Amino acid sequence: MLKLNVITTGGTIEKVYSEQTSTVANLDNQIDRYLGRLRLPDCDVRVMPLMNKDSLEMTDDDRSSILALVEQMLSEQPAIVITHGTDTMVQTGLYLKQTLPELKVPIVLTGAMTPLGFEGSDGLQNLTESLFAVRILDPGIYVVMHNQVFPVDHVRKERETSRFVWID
Amino acid sequence: MLKLNVITTGGTIEKVYSEQTSTVANLDNQIDRYLGRLRLPDCDVRVMPLMNKDSLEMTDDDRSSILALVEQMLSEQPAIVITHGTDTMVQTGLYLKQTLPELKVPIVLTGAMTPLGFEGSDGLQNLTESLFAVRILDPGIYVVMHNQVFPVDHVRKERETSRFVWID
Amino acid sequence: MLKLNVITTGGTIEKVYSEQTSTVANLDNQIDRYLGRLRLPDCDVRVMPLMNKDSLEMTDDDRSSILALVEQMLSEQPAIVITHGTDTMVQTGLYLKQTLPELKVPIVLTGAMTPLGFEGSDGLQNLTESLFAVRILDPGIYVVMHNQVFPVDHVRKERETSRFVWID
Amino acid sequence: MLKLNVITTGGTIEKVYSEQTSTVANLDNQIDRYLGRLRLPDCDVRVMPLMNKDSLEMTDDDRSSILALVEQMLSEQPAIVITHGTDTMVQTGLYLKQTLPELKVPIVLTGAMTPLGFEGSDGLQNLTESLFAVRILDPGIYVVMHNQVFPVDHVRKERETSRFVWID
Repeated sequence: MLKLNVITTGGTIEKVYSEQTSTVANLDNQIDRYLGRLRLPDCDVRVMPLMNKDSLEMTDDDRSSILALVEQMLSEQPAIVITHGTDTMVQTGLYLKQTLPELKVPIVLTGAMTPLGFEGSDGLQNLTESLFAVRILDPGIYVVMHNQVFPVDHVRKERETSRFVWID
Repeated sequence: MLKLNVITTGGTIEKVYSEQTSTVANLDNQIDRYLGRLRLPDCDVRVMPLMNKDSLEMTDDDRSSILALVEQMLSEQPAIVITHGTDTMVQTGLYLKQTLPELKVPIVLTGAMTPLGFEGSDGLQNLTESLFAVRILDPGIYVVMHNQVFPVDHVRKERETSRFVWID
Repeated sequence: MLKLNVITTGGTIEKVYSEQTSTVANLDNQIDRYLGRLRLPDCDVRVMPLMNKDSLEMTDDDRSSILALVEQMLSEQPAIVITHGTDTMVQTGLYLKQTLPELKVPIVLTGAMTPLGFEGSDGLQNLTESLFAVRILDPGIYVVMHNQVFPVDHVRKERETSRFVWID
Repeated sequence: MLKLNVITTGGTIEKVYSEQTSTVANLDNQIDRYLGRLRLPDCDVRVMPLMNKDSLEMTDDDRSSILALVEQMLSEQPAIVITHGTDTMVQTGLYLKQTLPELKVPIVLTGAMTPLGFEGSDGLQNLTESLFAVRILDPGIYVVMHNQVFPVDHVRKERETSRFVWID
């Protein structure tokens, strides 16, 4: 059985519509509820809601918190999925790559362009792919989105097309 | 067969999430597509997209346009549903009531607290109720939302509870 | 506040897909869960799951049970919605009409052509309309489906078109 | 860009509810429409609807047709996903394995326990995983379902639990 930790940090994937402010915002954890829609009979998933922030507002301290949690987890060597805002997902991934020792498991960063539960959301697709990816990928840090896998040092977000693209 | 005209003006019910701006906004007509999800075998529906605005930005000119379109329609005496932002829905309804001559059909204003297609949206419920209401109600101008019917001069929006309430 | 009792009896509207048998069947109550998707701030709803049967298998005893429950409720005069299979919905309605004394509230029978939760289902539309109808209709027994209201002695199911039609 | 062929053959994943017969059946192709819900910017997908059958009714001739289509495709070496009923998915996979020469691409068989578009369906999850799997897996024939990957000669369906399990 796959041992899998999911760290949630907010970002578009977890945004909800607020009737009081008529805006979308990071108000509640959403990932756990959506994982409940997937069939994962061979997966022992633990969801850890660490923060709930637009990734443009993430600070160095926030990234240190993510690193600390990942380091603590690595002793038990579960696969790790981190849900994250797309705007600074690569930045966080590169920070983890520079700081962590050689990995023995894959760490996948994922998120969404449109929030979970909104028509046309890519959130559940990306979650599904990420949970599948950590089962197969070699150790390393990756971004998984839209049927693609990128090593974290070969990817950037392309805002105009709402996707991630390869960089050399 | 019920002859029914639906005038769409924007408001929350038609807002969509924009991946470019990470906000919700009135960008496209949505009502027609959602009406396609309802079974209306005894209903001859014509959808007229008039504008697509947050109702807080509606001007006197916009309300004159709505009035002009309603007046033009009334010669053929169809039932009329107007989809509208909730913030100034009552204001538009009162304006129509003060200006229109004695009605021979019901006119129903409706909208939503959460956009169509977002999880937990009340939009399709309100549309369903409004299309049903114009079949049964006496001539007059009403707000129909959340299983309730209000004559337009006896209703106000209660923002804190995201609902409409009766006023004497 | 509208006092509303919903009696559920099964029928297509409550059918679910069984992975064990690869068929659809009446296995569990569904109505209560779907009512939770509607906003009913001015409605005091009580759901009474009475049976869960394909209406082609309903017996005289079953109809007596429905009648007994309705009679018991009528002392408190709530509006009543009965969810029911479409094949014998009219038969049950006519039986209630012949047996019940003069009504002081509307009783609405409704159901669906495709089960709740299946793509293209008309179940939530019909529920929404029925809950709205009992708020407005005069006392009497009705079938409410697909934006239409029929007095129970002027309606029949038209199987080929999956709808109900008026009969004189 | 990933070159991907999807062969559809029916099975539960493509079953729909028929209002005329009140049963679920293989009536229309569904896969293409559901693939449209996924974001596949780096994927050149071609969908080939070959047949639309409950897999318990598949004949030797049907399996020969699948083989012939796969063989024809292999000259261009796209990845291949085959959607298939779960009851004989393994049988078809083993037949392909015994007959095909050494593969240079992965072939993934997938399906669903509950049809696409029914509440609680695992169909879109399995499609998402399969399209991702063929991007990463080594050449060979696999069953991909519910976050798991099985070489086709190490898997059987476990009907009681509605899942696939490993066999040695």
